[in-house]
Formats: sequence, C-alpha cells, structure tokens
Amino acid sequence: MTDFTRMERNELHSNRNQLLKRYDRFRSRRLNLDMARGKPCSEQLDLSLGLLDCVNTENYTSDDGTDYRNYGGLDGIAEAKRLVADYLEVQPDELIVGGNSSLSLMHDTVVRAILHGVVDSQVKWGKLPKIKFLCPAPGYDRHFSMCEYLNIDMIPVELDESGPDMDAVEKLVASDETIRGMWCVPKYSNPTGTTYSDEVVERLARMKTKASDFRIFWDNAYAVHHLTETPDRLKNILTSCKEAGNSERVFIFGSTSKITLPGAGIAMMAASRKNIEFTKKQLSIQTIGPDKINQLRHVRFFRNLSDIESHMKKHAAIIRPKFEAVQRILEKELGGKNIARWSRPNGGYFISLDTMAGCAKKVVEMASAAGVKLTPAGATYPFGNDPLDRNIRIAPTFPPLNQVETATELLAVCVQLASIDKLVAKSESSM
Amino acid sequence: MTDFTRMERNELHSNRNQLLKRYDRFRSRRLNLDMARGKPCSEQLDLSLGLLDCVNTENYTSDDGTDYRNYGGLDGIAEAKRLVADYLEVQPDELIVGGNSSLSLMHDTVVRAILHGVVDSQVKWGKLPKIKFLCPAPGYDRHFSMCEYLNIDMIPVELDESGPDMDAVEKLVASDETIRGMWCVPKYSNPTGTTYSDEVVERLARMKTKASDFRIFWDNAYAVHHLTETPDRLKNILTSCKEAGNSERVFIFGSTSKITLPGAGIAMMAASRKNIEFTKKQLSIQTIGPDKINQLRHVRFFRNLSDIESHMKKHAAIIRPKFEAVQRILEKELGGKNIARWSRPNGGYFISLDTMAGCAKKVVEMASAAGVKLTPAGATYPFGNDPLDRNIRIAPTFPPLNQVETATELLAVCVQLASIDKLVAKSESSM
Repeated sequence: MTDFTRMERNELHSNRNQLLKRYDRFRSRRLNLDMARGKPCSEQLDLSLGLLDCVNTENYTSDDGTDYRNYGGLDGIAEAKRLVADYLEVQPDELIVGGNSSLSLMHDTVVRAILHGVVDSQVKWGKLPKIKFLCPAPGYDRHFSMCEYLNIDMIPVELDESGPDMDAVEKLVASDETIRGMWCVPKYSNPTGTTYSDEVVERLARMKTKASDFRIFWDNAYAVHHLTETPDRLKNILTSCKEAGNSERVFIFGSTSKITLPGAGIAMMAASRKNIEFTKKQLSIQTIGPDKINQLRHVRFFRNLSDIESHMKKHAAIIRPKFEAVQRILEKELGGKNIARWSRPNGGYFISLDTMAGCAKKVVEMASAAGVKLTPAGATYPFGNDPLDRNIRIAPTFPPLNQVETATELLAVCVQLASIDKLVAKSESSM
Repeated sequence: MTDFTRMERNELHSNRNQLLKRYDRFRSRRLNLDMARGKPCSEQLDLSLGLLDCVNTENYTSDDGTDYRNYGGLDGIAEAKRLVADYLEVQPDELIVGGNSSLSLMHDTVVRAILHGVVDSQVKWGKLPKIKFLCPAPGYDRHFSMCEYLNIDMIPVELDESGPDMDAVEKLVASDETIRGMWCVPKYSNPTGTTYSDEVVERLARMKTKASDFRIFWDNAYAVHHLTETPDRLKNILTSCKEAGNSERVFIFGSTSKITLPGAGIAMMAASRKNIEFTKKQLSIQTIGPDKINQLRHVRFFRNLSDIESHMKKHAAIIRPKFEAVQRILEKELGGKNIARWSRPNGGYFISLDTMAGCAKKVVEMASAAGVKLTPAGATYPFGNDPLDRNIRIAPTFPPLNQVETATELLAVCVQLASIDKLVAKSESSM
C-alpha cells in the first residue's frame, strides 16, 4: 500500500517522520544547487566552440563576394536565410534573420502591432480600449511578463497532452473581438514538453476569429531539441494557415540560443510574405541590420539542416542522462503514491511536475531552505499565479548529473512532506 | 572677376558653355560612382580584422571566470562597461552596453517613452494628444524618419557653427509643453561636421523646459572620429545636466560601428543612474541580454581608450586624403564664385555643401544623370524637405580617392551649371 491518499493518519505520520529525517540530512549537507534555469551546461556549450573561429581574418565575404563587414542587409545574409528557411520550413522570402534574441523579435512584433497595427488591422492595437492574448498555461513566463508590461490582458487556457484546449480556444476567439493574440510554444513546450497535435495545429489555422487581425505568436524555440530516438513531429502551421485562407494569422519565431551559444546565437522570425514585407519596412526604422558576421559564423559552422540535426544529437547525448535521472528518481520516490504527476518529454529543456493542489509554493520553499533553488512556483502561469498552486518546473540541463540526482531526490522528499501535511490537514478538517 | 552673382549675362553664358562641355565629357565616361553613404571603405574595415579572431576556442571567460557563452548579463559584460564608461565619460553604472545597433537603442528608448513614459513622466508620451521633437537641421535622416514613423511632430531648428540656435531652442522648450524631446548629433554632426560649443552644451543642460520630462537624445556617433591633428572637444553633457539639477534630461548614445565593423560592433547608451535603472527594468522584458562574446571581442581588441584613440588615427590616415581632395576641388571649382559654401570638418563622415537656394535637387539630379550618386537632396531635413533646397551631403569615405576626385569635380560642375541657370532666370525675371 503506497497510495498516500488512502493511508490512515498514523501511516501518514510515520511516513512523515521518516521523510523529515531525510530532509534534515539534506539540510545538514548545506547544499547550494540550482535547477531553476533552462540553461545549457558547459559541455553543451563546448559543442559550439567551433563557431568562435570559423570566420577569421581571411573569409568574411559571401559566396558572391559581398563584404559582410560593412553596413547593409536588413533581413539577414542570403546564406543564413537559406539555412533558416530549411530550419523553419518556409521560403527564404518568408523570414527575417535577426540579432541574438528571439525574445526581442517577439517583443518588437507585439510593440509594432500596438503602435501601428498588423498588416490587416483597421485600428492600431494600442488605440483599442482593451487587448487580450490567450495564454496556454502552464507556459513560458517571459511571454506572460511581456503581456503584463505591455498592458495586454491574459486569458489562461489549459494545455493538455495534445496542446491547448481547442474547444475553449475556438469559443473564446469566435466571440471576443478584444482577443488579438495567442502565445504558443508548439513543440516540447516550456515547461510541459507538449507538442501540439496535427489536429490542434489545423484547428488553430482554421478557426474563426472575431478579430480580423488576430495573430498567433508561434515560439518554436525547441524545433530540433530532441531528447529521444522517437522525436515529436510538428505540423507546419504557416502551410496550414495558407490552406485555411488565413495566411497572415501566424508569426513564427526561433533561435539558435540553445543550439549554439545563448546570447551569441541568431534569432529568426517567419510569416507570410505580406507580413514579412510589412515588418521589414518597420524594422528599417529601428536598425540598419543585424550582425552579419555572426550569421556568417553560423552558416559556416552549419552548412545545412542536416549538420544542425547531427549537432543536436550531441546535445541530447549530454542532457538525456539528466532527464532520465529525474524520471528515475521521481518514479522511485513518488510513483504510485497518487500525490504527483509529471511530464516525460521527448525534447525541450524542462520536466513539468504537478503536485497536489496547494502544495507547489510550499515545496519550492522547502527545497530552497535545504539549498536547492527551483523556478518560483507559479512562474509558469500569467501574473505568476498558478490558480491550483501545483505546477513546478524542473530544469535539469545546467547542473552536473550528480547534482541533478541530489536535487531531484530532495525535491521528491519535499513533495511527499507537503502532500502529507495537506492530507493530514484535509482529514482533520473533515473530522 | 569670378563672382558669378556679379557677372553679365554673356559672361554667364560663356561659362555655361564651357561647363556644359565638361559635363558632357563626364557623361561620355559612363561613370558609376557612389558618394551617397556614410560607410567606411574596405581599408578601414581591414584595421579591425583582429576583432574576428581575438576570442577563440580557448578564451571565452571573463577575468573572474564567468563563462560568457551562456545566458545572462542584461546590461553588458563588466569589461565592456568599464571600456564604454571611459569612452562616454560616465560611470559604469550609468550605462548599458547593447547589441550591434545604437539606432535600435534610440528607437527603443523613444518607443518605451511612448508606451510607458520616462522615469519622471506623469503621463505616457503616447497618451498625450501630441508630442514634438526639436530637430536641429540639417541633421541625420534616420532620426527624422524615426519621428515620422512614431508619429512625433518635428520642429526644425537651425544648426549654426556652434550648434543649434539656442535662442530659438530655449524659447520653444520654455513655452511648448508638447515638446518632449530633441535630437542632437553633438560632435562632428551629420552632415555639417559641427561640434557643439561649451556654451551650447551648458544652455541645453540648464534651459527651463515646460515639459518636466523633456529628454535630449544625444547621438554622440562620432566621439573619437577625428580627421585632423586639432580635434574638436565636446563638453560632457551628463555632468552639465547634473550640475544644473537636470540629471535625468539626457540619453547619450554611441557605437563602435565606425570604429570596428558596421553591423558587428557594439552599441551603448548612458544616462543618470535613475534613467538607467528604469531602462534596465524595461529592457529585461525585451531581451535576456546582448551578445556577450562580441563585447568580449571588443575588450580584447581594445584594452583601453588609448587603444581606441590610436586605432582612430589609422582610420583618419585612410580617409583624410579623401576629405582633403573634396576640399581642394570644391575650393578650386567654386572658391570665390559666391554660389556655394561648404563645411571643413575636423572629424566625422561628411562634408555639407550649401548651394544657392533652389539648386540642390537639380544638382543631385544632374550628377545622377552623369553617373554619380549623391544623398538625395532634402534628406538632411525633416520629411526630406529642405525648405531652401540648398543642402547636399557629401560622403567621401567609401569610394577610392580617384573616384572621390572625379565625383567631386562633376558635382562642382553641376553646382556651377545649376547656379548659372538660377542666376540667368533671376536676371530675366527682373527685366
């Protein structure tokens, strides 16, 4: 009998005492571990060291002789556009290769819509009395803080195993004209690892929206970030939108931040030609162009998409054991106890753990008190507010394997302790 | 007797015939020259080739061991902040080192003020019925197109030899609350080469403004871009603003685009601590941070400000002969004729030529018809509209010396022809 929810009080107490002893032993070790941030570890960064010297004092020109050291090239160098077109599965004139940050591309795209509308807007978004974005949750905290900063109301939508709850999404966008946008991390979603099913992609492309200038912000951050030999496949949303007669509906974003070097990678956006032409005119006010030399480094380092894919296998070999360790320890510590469930992603950077309702904050606090830093509970929801207080994001890539093991074990102990407290309180209140 | 304005008609006609023959000879050469753009030439770019390999697979960490390949560092790496502090004459906590584009830093700063106001705003600029910027003119066309794009009204202010007409500026800002900003290129100004006098800087810092959140956008693009052995000196405006009790008044911008590589340089902004803290909070919504590796390249390539200064002497040695050629030819062709005047800058990237009123467009057209591309007439004024149609921007850095000579000679021939036409038309209409 391991199901905590069916245990008698004395069983719970005895488990609690055992767990408290383990917790105290962790505390006495004065740990200082960090599983909060989706950062590559240094072995992963080493994979891209070749990027640093593949453009040198002799080879800074394009195939056609253009000197990439000088001004020009608003939307990226031709070679990078070809590579990114393959990567994002679009045409080279349906994209912009930018600077080092896809977050900036997203932010600036929303800001432009506020100041000027999108290509088919009748009114600038900023002139509307209110704008709302749909926010599948749990999701990426930086999408949510961007909305908060830009005064965009957020409507959380549940994210299930095949993507956002499409019945809810369709109903909302069909009836509420103030809904102008929707955030999506469609593949190996942060934090759940969910990849949207073909049906979800098609329904997103096809659905009727009350706002004629509704936009999906498709943050395909983990397109090639597979962990297993059975990678997820994501349907091409731009193609689906075109087929549905909604060509302008989607802005696609990506970057090499977790392929090459975070901060020194290249970011990209794709959309219909009409969207891209509109964006380029506005972009020309903001910049003369991106760092072409760094784009050149990337196309020298990766000759083609197949090079990127091989490279990602090396990433997976480094981080897969860490993901496996988390799975093994969670299963061993929490399996069958009916107090938590967690994701088993085929890719991406996170494992998402759901505790019993009302336990996540306490778990993160207890882990922190014992020297293990986790992403703040609630961070994966709009306004940092997880209505059920149950979601915890585990980021196993950065720490060494033995630290991932220690931190996960401690986390599992904390989950059990918080669950027992919750169960005891429940049984007391029902007496 | 060379003063065209005092010539008899028959003298003008005979000069015209001579000049037309010369013009036709230029045309028959089927030239294809470009003096339109303020771009470094490839010999200048060669000076910075060392930048491409000074960070390699062995040395990507900071002095204190931080791995600059990973995420983090919103406002730049510590080493770059120290170098930029010296360069901009501010403290390291009074600045942000950004990506590759100071234009983006300026654009984004104005956009943030529109969406959120500046640190001491009572109302977001975008909520005001109207905003205006003062635009010393002739000036930088990209400042003006940014205002146009962001729906900011532009008030041109005359730029004289010591900077903007401060009597006009003071009167305007004291009486008009809708004036929230002012563009300045305070050193070796684009296109006139003007450096603001100490008095102008002090008056800008001290002046009473009706808007309490008025901002100067101080685009110090050519801080170290000297051409001669007698460089101009610019008073430190942040210090002056602090002394005047207007610490928050100024945003300072700069970049290494014309020091190292355009597009692959680093951009920077400086302001009071209060302004910078406010900006950093907003910046954290837009980006996780700039390309730290490229900042590291710059601090490896330039250990200190003195390295930058020596480097700029090499730039000057390459482009000074081109500036001298323009001066020599303009003097020889136009000197004493009373039909044009032009700047003799101690630095920067341009020579500004004023023709007789109503001639600039025609001159640029004639030069273009003979195969020499110049910056469009009017581009140096808000909305591309030079009210007197007389200013022409000459950009001598990019073409080889012999092309600069040919293009300038043709330009001077066109100026003379357009002037004679104007003088003849005038004398006819007064008959």
